[in-house]
Amino acid sequence: MSLIVAALGGNAIIKKGEQGTFAQQFRNTFECMGYIAHLIRAGHQVVLTHGNGLQVGFIMIQVEAAAGKVPTAPLHVDVAQSQGSMGYMIAQSLINQLQEHGIDTCVAAVMTQVLVNRDDLAMKHPTKPVGAFYTRERAVELERRGHAIVEDSGRGWRRVVASPRPIRIIEAEIIKDLVQAGTIVVACGGGGIPVAEENGALNGVDAVIDKDLASSLLADEIKADVIMFLTTVDQVALNYNTPQQVELERLSLDEARQYLHDGQFPPGSMGPKIEAAVEFVECGGERAVVCRPKVVVEALAGRAGTVIE
Amino acid sequence: MSLIVAALGGNAIIKKGEQGTFAQQFRNTFECMGYIAHLIRAGHQVVLTHGNGLQVGFIMIQVEAAAGKVPTAPLHVDVAQSQGSMGYMIAQSLINQLQEHGIDTCVAAVMTQVLVNRDDLAMKHPTKPVGAFYTRERAVELERRGHAIVEDSGRGWRRVVASPRPIRIIEAEIIKDLVQAGTIVVACGGGGIPVAEENGALNGVDAVIDKDLASSLLADEIKADVIMFLTTVDQVALNYNTPQQVELERLSLDEARQYLHDGQFPPGSMGPKIEAAVEFVECGGERAVVCRPKVVVEALAGRAGTVIE
Repeated sequence: MSLIVAALGGNAIIKKGEQGTFAQQFRNTFECMGYIAHLIRAGHQVVLTHGNGLQVGFIMIQVEAAAGKVPTAPLHVDVAQSQGSMGYMIAQSLINQLQEHGIDTCVAAVMTQVLVNRDDLAMKHPTKPVGAFYTRERAVELERRGHAIVEDSGRGWRRVVASPRPIRIIEAEIIKDLVQAGTIVVACGGGGIPVAEENGALNGVDAVIDKDLASSLLADEIKADVIMFLTTVDQVALNYNTPQQVELERLSLDEARQYLHDGQFPPGSMGPKIEAAVEFVECGGERAVVCRPKVVVEALAGRAGTVIE
Repeated sequence: MSLIVAALGGNAIIKKGEQGTFAQQFRNTFECMGYIAHLIRAGHQVVLTHGNGLQVGFIMIQVEAAAGKVPTAPLHVDVAQSQGSMGYMIAQSLINQLQEHGIDTCVAAVMTQVLVNRDDLAMKHPTKPVGAFYTRERAVELERRGHAIVEDSGRGWRRVVASPRPIRIIEAEIIKDLVQAGTIVVACGGGGIPVAEENGALNGVDAVIDKDLASSLLADEIKADVIMFLTTVDQVALNYNTPQQVELERLSLDEARQYLHDGQFPPGSMGPKIEAAVEFVECGGERAVVCRPKVVVEALAGRAGTVIE
C-alpha cells in the first residue's frame, strides 16, 4: 500500500472544447473521481492536487467585470476562491464515488498556502497561462490594455501571470496528520495560494504557482511514495507531434534530465511534469508516473503510462 | 481548558461604513485574530466559524457582471468560493498573530459542506440578506428585475436568498480529528456549503445557511464545551434600541426561549444567535456566550458579555 499524490490536470475537470459550465465541471470531476476511487479501494492512501488555470481565469474576468461595483480582489484571493470551489467540487465528487463503491473513508479539502520568494525572477516575467483562450485579434486588444498575453501550446492565446517556484507548503503538517488519520485530502489546489514571508508574517503574493511543481514539493514534504501526474496523453513522448514521435514506458532520472535539457518537453504542458518528477525522485521519492486518469491503477502497477524512477 | 467554537460576525471582517476592500478585510481580520490568539495562549482549543454575507454578495455581483463571458456559477459554488477565500484570510491572519505571540500551533481552513433538506419550507421563501446595501430606489429596480429584496435591520436594502436549516456537518469527523491533533480549525465558513442527499449522493443546493445555526450544530457534533458568538454589542439586550433597553449578563434557557418567543430578538441579527445558543445548551453544551471579539477572554470567564446556560 502506497501513499500517492495524484495531480489532476485541467482536462480532468474541463475537457478540450468544452465551455466549462459548472454542470460539465461537476460531471467530469465525478467521472475522474471514479478512477481515484479504484486506487482507494485497492488500499492506497491518496492526496489529490489539481490545476486551476481556466477557473482562476474565469474569476479574474468576473472580478474585472464588476470593478467599481464591488471591491476588487487581488490575484492571491482569486486563487483562494478557485481553490475553495474546486476543492469542494472534488471532495463532494469523491465522497459520492466512495459511497457508490461502498467505501467508508473521509475526504477533506484543505486550504493550502505555498511559500514563494517575492524576489523570484519569475515575478518580473509573467509566463503562466490562465483563463480563457482568445483569438489573435482579441489577444492583440488585451495586450493593448496592458495584459501580458502568450500563445499557449497551439490552443490559442491566453493571459499570463507570474509563476514563482514553490519553496514550502505551509499546511504540510496538517495534511500529514489527516493522511495518518486515514483521510483522503484535497490540497494545494491551483498550485496553492502563493504567500511570501515578510518580518515573520505571511502575506499573499499576486501570482499562480505551477501545480506540478507544488505537487512534487508536497509529495516530498509528506513523504509520499509515488507521485502521479494525470493528464491527456497515454505516455510521455520524445519528438512529440512529429513523425519521429516515440512513446516512453520508462525514463531514468538521467534520461529525464537530459531530455529536459534538450527541450523535448514544452514548458506549458509536459515540461513542468517531468521537472517535478525529477525533483521528487531526486529527493528520495520511489517513482513518478505520467498517465491518463482512466488507467491510474494499471499505471501504478507499471502496465500503462510512463514511469520515471 | 475548553474546546470553544467561536463564531465571527460579519463586522469582525468588514466594519460598519467600510467598503470592504481587501486591505480592510485583511486588516480587520488580523486585528480580530489578535483576540483569538489570547484564547489560544490561555490553553483553549478553538474552532473558528464565520459569516460571509457581504462577501458572497460581492461574488454574486461579479458572477452576474460577467454572465455571457464566462460560465455562470450556481450559488452553492459562490458560497464555496467565499468560504475558500475567507478561510484563507482568517487562517493566514491567525498564523501571523500566533507567530507574534510566539505560539507554535497549526491552523487549517477546511472546506465544509452542510446537509440541508431540499423540501425545507425556507427554500421557497428567501429571507437571508446577502451582499451590498442598496438605496430604496436601487432596491425597487432590483426587485423589478426579479430579485428578492428586504430592508435589513435599518441598515438599508439587500438581496435575500433561501436559508434552510442545517441538519448535519459532512466534515465533522475530520474537524474533530484535527482538533484532537491540536490544530486550530476554521470551518463552516458562511454557514457551510449547503448540500442535499439524493439517492445517497450529495449535491449542492442554491441557498445560504445561517452561520449561527450551523456553528451551534458543529459545536454539538464535535462536543465543544462552549460556543461564543462574537458580535458588535456588549451584551444581549431586551427592548433593544428603545428607552427601556436592559442589558443582560445572564440568561437561563427558559428565559431565552421565552424572550425569543416574545420577539425580543430581531431575525437578522440577535435572533439566530439566541436560537443557536438555546439549541447548543439544550443538546448538552456547557454554555453559550455573546460578546465583542475584544473581550473574548473576559467573557469566557463570565466578566463580560452575556452567558446563556
